[in-house]
Amino acid sequence: MAKEKKLSSKVVYEGRAFRIRMDTVQKSSGQSALRDVLERSDCIAVVAVDAEDNVLLERQFRTAAGKELLEIPAGGIDPGEDPETAVKREMREETGYFPQKVTRLGGFYASPGYSTEYLYLFLATDLTPSQLFAEDTDEIELVRVPVSKIRRLILSGEIDDAKSIAGLLMYLEKIKAPGS
Amino acid sequence: MAKEKKLSSKVVYEGRAFRIRMDTVQKSSGQSALRDVLERSDCIAVVAVDAEDNVLLERQFRTAAGKELLEIPAGGIDPGEDPETAVKREMREETGYFPQKVTRLGGFYASPGYSTEYLYLFLATDLTPSQLFAEDTDEIELVRVPVSKIRRLILSGEIDDAKSIAGLLMYLEKIKAPGS
Repeated sequence: MAKEKKLSSKVVYEGRAFRIRMDTVQKSSGQSALRDVLERSDCIAVVAVDAEDNVLLERQFRTAAGKELLEIPAGGIDPGEDPETAVKREMREETGYFPQKVTRLGGFYASPGYSTEYLYLFLATDLTPSQLFAEDTDEIELVRVPVSKIRRLILSGEIDDAKSIAGLLMYLEKIKAPGS
Repeated sequence: MAKEKKLSSKVVYEGRAFRIRMDTVQKSSGQSALRDVLERSDCIAVVAVDAEDNVLLERQFRTAAGKELLEIPAGGIDPGEDPETAVKREMREETGYFPQKVTRLGGFYASPGYSTEYLYLFLATDLTPSQLFAEDTDEIELVRVPVSKIRRLILSGEIDDAKSIAGLLMYLEKIKAPGS
């Protein structure tokens, strides 16, 4: 097991939210292989908790899943933007709240088998109401769920989005043992 | 917030592990929008625990991430295959162990913003050694980690793959309270 050597790379599809490139790589065994890679900007995902210990979730229809999902707020980091700024912008755009306090909780790759997407995970607190000003958020319903009910929503399958499960359970682990 | 209506759909890229289609949809507001959707077969992901309470993880170089990641075993479900059979096949192919017992833990969408991929999450136990017979697993290093150390590997960022974090923390939640 070792690093692959990239022999060549070309863009094969240019979409709106991502592009696809095809790499020809040489594996450590010497064999060459083709890899389809989805290139996407890094993203942020946010566990947002209000003063009453409710987590802010978003319910929206997802074309790719073909159904409505309950998810934590998330979105792409704009070019030149730092992750903390992206968190504050996305929170205002999608939830109508501005977080006075944003702290890093961790991060993870969304689908490392084929996607470059890395999600920076943040905790957002000290939420103050802020005007909704985004264009494409008319389809998002904001849902407040007490922190004490999050575990049950995950284990029952009502929350069935990988980033939301990973982010929320990491948050629950952290608040159980803040020093770790 | 409501279901979108699909107006048209066409395949714009056909790759090895996925294909890309572009949908034209009508949102509940009446506006139309374009959606790039990555189509991929459903997958399984496995929390595999041996008799000594070690979790079986895989370390491998991921082209899309550009680095080695530590992940739970996972893979696509073949056409006509049921998820349990895929778990047993992938376990033999990737770890060299055959699980005598396979139970469902849950499931989640990998990246519902653009990908159809749904992962069925299973717990695999009663592992018996089995001959490795897959072609493409020479690059995978099997790593055994005591269950008691999993939480630390996640919170420290050493495990930074969404499906692995979601799957392992769901498993830890389940064993804490088996009835839920």
